[in-house]
Amino acid sequence: MLYSRMGKTEPHWSNLHDAGRLDIAYECIVASLFLSHGLRRDVTFHAVLNGAPNPPMHLQINGKQLFDVRTDIDTWNTILKKALGGKAHPGVTTEKTSFEALLKAKAETNSVYVLEEGGKNAQTMDFDKEPLFVLGDHVGLPKNAERFALRFGEKISLGKTPYLAASCITVINYLLDQKEKNLEQ
Amino acid sequence: MLYSRMGKTEPHWSNLHDAGRLDIAYECIVASLFLSHGLRRDVTFHAVLNGAPNPPMHLQINGKQLFDVRTDIDTWNTILKKALGGKAHPGVTTEKTSFEALLKAKAETNSVYVLEEGGKNAQTMDFDKEPLFVLGDHVGLPKNAERFALRFGEKISLGKTPYLAASCITVINYLLDQKEKNLEQ
Repeated sequence: MLYSRMGKTEPHWSNLHDAGRLDIAYECIVASLFLSHGLRRDVTFHAVLNGAPNPPMHLQINGKQLFDVRTDIDTWNTILKKALGGKAHPGVTTEKTSFEALLKAKAETNSVYVLEEGGKNAQTMDFDKEPLFVLGDHVGLPKNAERFALRFGEKISLGKTPYLAASCITVINYLLDQKEKNLEQ
Repeated sequence: MLYSRMGKTEPHWSNLHDAGRLDIAYECIVASLFLSHGLRRDVTFHAVLNGAPNPPMHLQINGKQLFDVRTDIDTWNTILKKALGGKAHPGVTTEKTSFEALLKAKAETNSVYVLEEGGKNAQTMDFDKEPLFVLGDHVGLPKNAERFALRFGEKISLGKTPYLAASCITVINYLLDQKEKNLEQ
């Protein structure tokens, strides 16, 4: 679940970068859902966009229903324009929901982990079932959003290196793959 | 070091995807060199492009010398066009060198690791100093290139999940960061 401070909530922009850094949301979508020649069908990506003119907007991308997609930016430019304009695309939905309301609802069925430098080391810890990872965009999670999220979950950390948001997601997916493999052995 | 089977070796293309999947090289460049609000100054990215009309071409991007760059695709579209057209950009160079010649030269000063599903688990192993990681693009490393690389190094693996090339690099950087942190403690 990505908290996007400035992500535009209408489809009239010329490129993802200038749409309140929706390029970061795009990179996070690819990192969350795409493998080489395949999709992670068991992943759902959420972003809460807090940019003008109609915040907050919850953008959901469900790996189970997604099809006809590639990793390139033009594909996602088109899909995000459609979604923010209220049009349908398989697996992609938008609704008017705040970060707080979404997180509270998700916490009923998911274990919440908040990415934060001072958290528990993600590499060595065990995650509960149905983990949900919360992170901010290039300016980080706002303090009040972080405080709210921590009422429902705990801090985890990838170390002191300040990774791009999408890189955090790639690493989390890798660590989950590794832990799953270890359980199978 | 990315082996690009089809990456174009001239600058006359309309977008990176259609330039023999130079979009993959672009994603690998970002994954190799970029942090949130910063660059990995200690990383050098290499790609050997084997596409028309002038293969093989060695593209090198040196994190120490790079400046005036962002992670977005337009920035790198421009830089790669300049570089493939023989023009200078700080930290970015091209030269006519084959994968085999480059690897052999690098192996004199670097420890070579080849990404391959059947290799040693990268999470639990120790890397030697000055590691160099070799990987293929979306169709993988050609068998003869892999065989050549293994004369100079060993196979390592990120597991059975088929990651995007850029995701492999992100994970390797994360594992190196973690190992470095452990050494400092």
